[in-house]
Amino acid sequence: METTVKNKQVILRNYVEGTPKESDLMIVTASDIMELKVKPGSGAMLVKNLYLSCDPYIGILMREPTPSTSALLDAFVPGKPIYGFGVSKVIASDNPGFAEGDFVHGIVDWEEYRIIKATGSGRFTKIDINIDVPLTYYTGILGMPGLTAYGGFFEICSPKKGETVFVSAASGAVGQLVGQFAKLMGCYVVGSAGSKQKVDLLLNKFGFDDAFNYKEEPDFDSALKRCFPKGIDIYFENVGGKMLDAVLLNMRTSGRISVCGMISQYHLETRDLVQNLPDIMFKRIRMQGFACYEFNDQKPKFLEFVLSNIKEDKLTYVEDIVEGLENGPAALVGLLHGRNVGKQVIKVSRE
Amino acid sequence: METTVKNKQVILRNYVEGTPKESDLMIVTASDIMELKVKPGSGAMLVKNLYLSCDPYIGILMREPTPSTSALLDAFVPGKPIYGFGVSKVIASDNPGFAEGDFVHGIVDWEEYRIIKATGSGRFTKIDINIDVPLTYYTGILGMPGLTAYGGFFEICSPKKGETVFVSAASGAVGQLVGQFAKLMGCYVVGSAGSKQKVDLLLNKFGFDDAFNYKEEPDFDSALKRCFPKGIDIYFENVGGKMLDAVLLNMRTSGRISVCGMISQYHLETRDLVQNLPDIMFKRIRMQGFACYEFNDQKPKFLEFVLSNIKEDKLTYVEDIVEGLENGPAALVGLLHGRNVGKQVIKVSRE
Repeated sequence: METTVKNKQVILRNYVEGTPKESDLMIVTASDIMELKVKPGSGAMLVKNLYLSCDPYIGILMREPTPSTSALLDAFVPGKPIYGFGVSKVIASDNPGFAEGDFVHGIVDWEEYRIIKATGSGRFTKIDINIDVPLTYYTGILGMPGLTAYGGFFEICSPKKGETVFVSAASGAVGQLVGQFAKLMGCYVVGSAGSKQKVDLLLNKFGFDDAFNYKEEPDFDSALKRCFPKGIDIYFENVGGKMLDAVLLNMRTSGRISVCGMISQYHLETRDLVQNLPDIMFKRIRMQGFACYEFNDQKPKFLEFVLSNIKEDKLTYVEDIVEGLENGPAALVGLLHGRNVGKQVIKVSRE
Repeated sequence: METTVKNKQVILRNYVEGTPKESDLMIVTASDIMELKVKPGSGAMLVKNLYLSCDPYIGILMREPTPSTSALLDAFVPGKPIYGFGVSKVIASDNPGFAEGDFVHGIVDWEEYRIIKATGSGRFTKIDINIDVPLTYYTGILGMPGLTAYGGFFEICSPKKGETVFVSAASGAVGQLVGQFAKLMGCYVVGSAGSKQKVDLLLNKFGFDDAFNYKEEPDFDSALKRCFPKGIDIYFENVGGKMLDAVLLNMRTSGRISVCGMISQYHLETRDLVQNLPDIMFKRIRMQGFACYEFNDQKPKFLEFVLSNIKEDKLTYVEDIVEGLENGPAALVGLLHGRNVGKQVIKVSRE
């Protein structure tokens, strides 16, 4: 095993206008040599990043912050590495809470190694390796996207058996779970996605009742009317814009819209014209934004629910894993264009 | 007293495109003679309409129905009278529940007289004349607009003392009450309205902390930033469109938007571009449409609250009363253009 390295990082060049491009990020190898150990008595630990999570909000944080986006999370700093959720391995530790060989998940910079001071270790949660799931799951089904799907669906949407549920970006990290959760609840579930392959996944892997490729639908309203002749009770919103507009027309009275994201709109100079907002009043719709940390107190219940359903083969999770930190920027940009199939993960290093 | 009349009605000519005009309605006097009595043994009663309520939703019901607007209420029928809330006097009755001389409020056609069959009397509520308020109040503060303001503010917005509240169309039938309710709760309240006279009312009659004339604000975002340097916790939405867009930018985290109406948008061919919908996600905003009948079970609590505050001079109500059924169309069109000052009522007949 190596004892020294030159750390590699993914750095934001400058705030981005329009949709982020690969060239907005750069891979930088440190000129300094880093020793793979921690000072005795320091209370620090050294982590090696194994997996990084690609999520749409990362694109928002690459833009110049506004009061609106700052309410979500602090923007990245140009010249510094971007950060997000990740899974890491502790390779040296003077921290009594973590031992060499432990696996942890939490917020990490997009880089290979990092010395974590004692005061910074609170952002990591130790992974129980007796739970028989891939480590990548802690960036997805067992991590932020999982809790997002769980709270965003069960808490925000108050689903009832027999209700109709529409999920956009339905094969993504969150959408595939919302669809499966809704099926477990006894709902009628339809998803939209951007390719035939994804639509096939929805129908054949995740058990959606129906699905359509939005890129092949000239008229979203017609597509929704075909799939929901009696209307939509619950919309799990991931995309915004024209799709939201068509959904509003097709919502039923007392419908609920859980606003998880509006990925089609973040990087546009002029956003889509959404004409049907008065439907919120006509049909007494509740439309609600949320953040997964609102549901932190439900984590134990969430984990039990997800893990027991995984064990009984009632829940599955599709990941799209790209190898190598240097391929991170392309994976992120690909995600923003919908080129991923399932949860996009970057594998930084072998376990 | 007359014993026979020729009934006069306000008839919808045809479904309307664009903003309703006076010529979309016509005043028709029946050719038949109506006897002002009811058949013994019929269980019917004869009511004479005293006051009719002008409300923005009436404009929606004059348009060709869509699945969206039908979810709200059934559209009017061309060639037939329009209808809405009203206060009437029972002038003859064979119905054991109502006596000659009773005052009632409920849903009535825009006309002078109507024989109400026994089966139709359920849509009327008897007025307790021992309650010392003008009869017109049953079309406003004690009627639909009152319950709308009460439920839409206290239930939908979950206000807390010290929160900031913005009300658009703030001197209207509902807005003037929401502002006063919010002040009673200990909130900081700002209203927008469309004239200096209305702004003066907000500040000097209803006790708003601040107010602005939206017609004199080239930039709603700046106006809101001036009035709410720390942002808006609660928005009581009556207008929609550009105002909603500016409000979204100025909402605080976990803000609530009660969608009572979007009057600026109903009659446009192309609605305003609302660009800031992603703020619903960024700031975890809850935006909720509602209808006042959702709060029917709270009517006793609502009436007690309102009546006790009226009695203690802590609540006031401004009405704009026009005389004569024949002036009803102009009053309604005026309302849709914001020409009313306070709750718009049509006085059909002397009590």
